[in-house]
Amino acid sequence: MRMSELSAATGIAVPTLKFYLREGLLHAGERTSPNQARYDDGHVERVRLVRALLEVGGLPVARAVEVIAAMEQPDVSLSHAFGVAQRAVTEPSSVSSSATPDDAGAMGATGPTGAAIIAALCDRRSWHVHADNPGLAMAARVLDAYTALGQQELVEVLDAYAAAAELVASADLQSVADAGARSSGDRAAMVDVVIVGTVLGDALAAGLRRIAQEVESFRRFPDAAGQVHA
Amino acid sequence: MRMSELSAATGIAVPTLKFYLREGLLHAGERTSPNQARYDDGHVERVRLVRALLEVGGLPVARAVEVIAAMEQPDVSLSHAFGVAQRAVTEPSSVSSSATPDDAGAMGATGPTGAAIIAALCDRRSWHVHADNPGLAMAARVLDAYTALGQQELVEVLDAYAAAAELVASADLQSVADAGARSSGDRAAMVDVVIVGTVLGDALAAGLRRIAQEVESFRRFPDAAGQVHA
Repeated sequence: MRMSELSAATGIAVPTLKFYLREGLLHAGERTSPNQARYDDGHVERVRLVRALLEVGGLPVARAVEVIAAMEQPDVSLSHAFGVAQRAVTEPSSVSSSATPDDAGAMGATGPTGAAIIAALCDRRSWHVHADNPGLAMAARVLDAYTALGQQELVEVLDAYAAAAELVASADLQSVADAGARSSGDRAAMVDVVIVGTVLGDALAAGLRRIAQEVESFRRFPDAAGQVHA
Repeated sequence: MRMSELSAATGIAVPTLKFYLREGLLHAGERTSPNQARYDDGHVERVRLVRALLEVGGLPVARAVEVIAAMEQPDVSLSHAFGVAQRAVTEPSSVSSSATPDDAGAMGATGPTGAAIIAALCDRRSWHVHADNPGLAMAARVLDAYTALGQQELVEVLDAYAAAAELVASADLQSVADAGARSSGDRAAMVDVVIVGTVLGDALAAGLRRIAQEVESFRRFPDAAGQVHA
């Protein structure tokens, strides 16, 4: 198909498709003349993926480029794909581990730092992770903020959140295994699920949390909850 | 204390404090002369809160202003506070419900829409929520994207994610109840926990998910996981 047909098939305007091509988000079509190229179903799928990463996952373009580049590596490992996808959806400020101790101090924290609380959690649950897992600094920063704000009640949610994270991660890896089973172990299909599920899954989990909060708020505080979202 | 002392106590530069004052993120100090005002511990706490909302929660300034305004209402209900906090951390594009059906169509979705899948989930779990809960559209968009990308495996994570959301929301509301118990039912203390926990909790949950993904990835695919984040 021509670019105009690719545009019609995906609902993405031609100038945007050209932008995707320039940025390396979309692979070039097969050139049929100096001014024309032919695109196929692989391009339609890629455009849908890019759109989902940018619009639903909220990735900046530069992060989406990294994710796409990882997917295009011929024998990328699942774990490398997880690492790239996780970093893509983790704010740069959250992974700057050097910021964490200073922040905690400047924000008036006393007692254990967020990093120490997370390390103790990992011990407690026998979670063995590399020191550069971006989740470590991300979670530690939130705990530092809770402590600095004097909200010990919020630090105490940690074990319930950890149990929830195990449920979510188990479902995430089940979906990767299912994609492998369905495709007879095709690594590219599994990497697809890793990338898409990691990038978009945070928003799914956060959306369901908002729904469950309303349900639980009404259950615990029925009088106050009558006007939810009114 | 003077503004320079407020700056020293919080680690926030004076020009930034002046910005907070102008934007309504920080309440005015007690004026002691035409050019000076006096600030107290309430200002220190507020600056820490604003910093946490902006830097750890990642809120745009305009959203932080809405959240602070809700906290300052003398008799704000818990449910209204939840609504304001939830909307503050939900991307505008995710709550535009009018975008959802079109998106699903343009992205090539067939079968039930994300909205229908979420409605069925709510029925299954006896979750009764208002139609304007921002989580409904947020979760539906992700499911539409999964469907459009042909990744049925990812749609199938939904029930595990829902169980995880119940755990998280139950912990969230427990922390609100604990804050109430500790403060003899002080509504402002409870609203604080609602706001801070809702805005920052997504990042805590997402951070723990990254850690648990690495653990679970290694458990299921030990050969591939040796090089995680390498």
